Amino acid sequence: MRVAVAGYSNTKFSLDETPIENLLVSATKQLFHNTKNLEQKDIDAVLVSTNNVKRYLAPVLSELAGIAPKISHSVENMCNSGTNAIVSGFSYIASGMADVVLITGAEQAENPGQILDWDSSRGEFQHPIFWGTIFTKSHKRKFGTTDEELAYVSALNHKNAQDNPYAYNPKQYTIQEISESKRITEDLRLLDCSRSCTGSSAILLASENVAKKYTDSPVWIEGIGQKTTSAGFTKNDLTSIESTIQAANQAYSMARIRPNNIDVVEIHDAFSVCELMILEDLGIVPKGKAAKLVPELYNTNNKKINPRGGLMGAGHPLGATGVAQIAEITSQLQGLSQKRQVENAKIGLVQNMSAAATSSTVLVLKN
Amino acid sequence: MRVAVAGYSNTKFSLDETPIENLLVSATKQLFHNTKNLEQKDIDAVLVSTNNVKRYLAPVLSELAGIAPKISHSVENMCNSGTNAIVSGFSYIASGMADVVLITGAEQAENPGQILDWDSSRGEFQHPIFWGTIFTKSHKRKFGTTDEELAYVSALNHKNAQDNPYAYNPKQYTIQEISESKRITEDLRLLDCSRSCTGSSAILLASENVAKKYTDSPVWIEGIGQKTTSAGFTKNDLTSIESTIQAANQAYSMARIRPNNIDVVEIHDAFSVCELMILEDLGIVPKGKAAKLVPELYNTNNKKINPRGGLMGAGHPLGATGVAQIAEITSQLQGLSQKRQVENAKIGLVQNMSAAATSSTVLVLKN
Repeated sequence: MRVAVAGYSNTKFSLDETPIENLLVSATKQLFHNTKNLEQKDIDAVLVSTNNVKRYLAPVLSELAGIAPKISHSVENMCNSGTNAIVSGFSYIASGMADVVLITGAEQAENPGQILDWDSSRGEFQHPIFWGTIFTKSHKRKFGTTDEELAYVSALNHKNAQDNPYAYNPKQYTIQEISESKRITEDLRLLDCSRSCTGSSAILLASENVAKKYTDSPVWIEGIGQKTTSAGFTKNDLTSIESTIQAANQAYSMARIRPNNIDVVEIHDAFSVCELMILEDLGIVPKGKAAKLVPELYNTNNKKINPRGGLMGAGHPLGATGVAQIAEITSQLQGLSQKRQVENAKIGLVQNMSAAATSSTVLVLKN
Repeated sequence: MRVAVAGYSNTKFSLDETPIENLLVSATKQLFHNTKNLEQKDIDAVLVSTNNVKRYLAPVLSELAGIAPKISHSVENMCNSGTNAIVSGFSYIASGMADVVLITGAEQAENPGQILDWDSSRGEFQHPIFWGTIFTKSHKRKFGTTDEELAYVSALNHKNAQDNPYAYNPKQYTIQEISESKRITEDLRLLDCSRSCTGSSAILLASENVAKKYTDSPVWIEGIGQKTTSAGFTKNDLTSIESTIQAANQAYSMARIRPNNIDVVEIHDAFSVCELMILEDLGIVPKGKAAKLVPELYNTNNKKINPRGGLMGAGHPLGATGVAQIAEITSQLQGLSQKRQVENAKIGLVQNMSAAATSSTVLVLKN
């Protein structure tokens, strides 16, 4: 049974202190508004993707949205909770357990659950800064990557975010502004980091039996790959992301495509260096060559990579991020991304990862 | 693709303050110990069922147990997290996304996430006592159920728990002791309530392609039903559990059985009255007749209902409960339940619910 993305919604990402329930309801209501013929009774499963510590949020969302699904629960795996919920929703449909699955992801900027306690005893900095720094230092050492090349990653994402009405801070920065932003570690400046923020997104998955009821342009999930290598990242090579390499190979094989078939990509740019590593590990450019590609995309106004601005430009509401990535690729493959549109996009890819890249999801979508 | 339970484990339920990671690892190690030919590399997905607020527990468990799965995440839906994770694992296998799925459920007695904050503004008592009382009062009013009949539910569960080596408190109580236990509300006494406790359980799901590698007696998941009616229970009839009725009908239909085919049952006896309501709503006895059945089971030493002692007798480690229920039914259908064994058990049922019975899972297993 093929599975389509048959609807989606975003809310404006922000630094507001909106209650998690309201965030979930906002994206869900917007999805109903965006999706023709969708009725509450159609929905077989409601999955909530979040790191919020509140319990029973999927039934609470269902109640508030007037839905009485069969299946409802929360899915959590830190930063890739969203794509984990989507793969779970896919399997409910592909196995015949459901026809229509709603996945709503939401996070609050100040949710305390964003640091991996288990791995927090490793030095001066809280976990994400710590591994972002080590990855950066390793990439510089091995490939001679410069601060200016890293600054272009941030510049490109912030530039793209200008055309994303949902970005929390759609401000453009010069290379100089990025290079002179607040120094956090020897190798990381403030504008090299994505920003945890508040936000929610929702998508509707539907079986091929019913997808056409909800959209004239279903977008099909054709390739899925997932890999958890370890919860402790220092076991990995520090200049590549093994979990993404393995997830990508699975997804390419399932979708029967090669990296050069991909028209538009959402990647998990937690830090500048991550975007370079991921572009390389997905096989979109050879290893060590991504640093040359990014300035070229920036200077030619090419929106193929992170058209909505990535996590750096759009913001990173953890549980919503993977959902928002799928929403963007769906919109791109439907040709509905307006100023962000990549021309003639037919095949899209989402890469979403967690906790120092120790687990990754890669999804291939086609229109 | 048929899906089997191909392995399981339990740990001793207790009131200890064991860290959640240790609980997860204990049950997982025990499952490896119990399951022939199982190697870490066989496992495609690791799902953790818990209400614990720690993040990324599925990759942390994987790391600690030497597993590098494709899929890993936590599933939360309060008291039926365990069966939600199991249905999710079922769908990964049934859809062809996985061959072998490990599901480990764990909870700490003092985990603060056990009260549904969203619904806590309803009176003097915290949520579970509140709805347990209202259900009890309603059942008494409608069916003339007596305190003595309710006490038999507790007596039966505690009696059965005596033969469960994993029960947190395998103590037997007389009807008089139960009837004279501490009064909590007008209609509930202490021994009418299940007890949140610490514990963990694990199960291994396997596709029919590989199940025989791990067990000579695979037990098949043949029927699945789930329903979320509402997150606010007062919208429901207060003498029956609509979510269980609907879930049971789905499961019976999928498994092509009737209630009178069932040989052994695990039901979610959060409070004494729940066991009566559930026996009725599953169709095992006609509505209003369960109160007469329970003393008969007690007096004839019949272990058909909650052979391991239910939540009242064995204890209720929230995220582990649904997993432990499946482990028990599997053991029963394999004829390995020793003193608890129901003779010649061929068809078993698990009923697991959350939050004032606003969502339910019903599973039918066959050997």
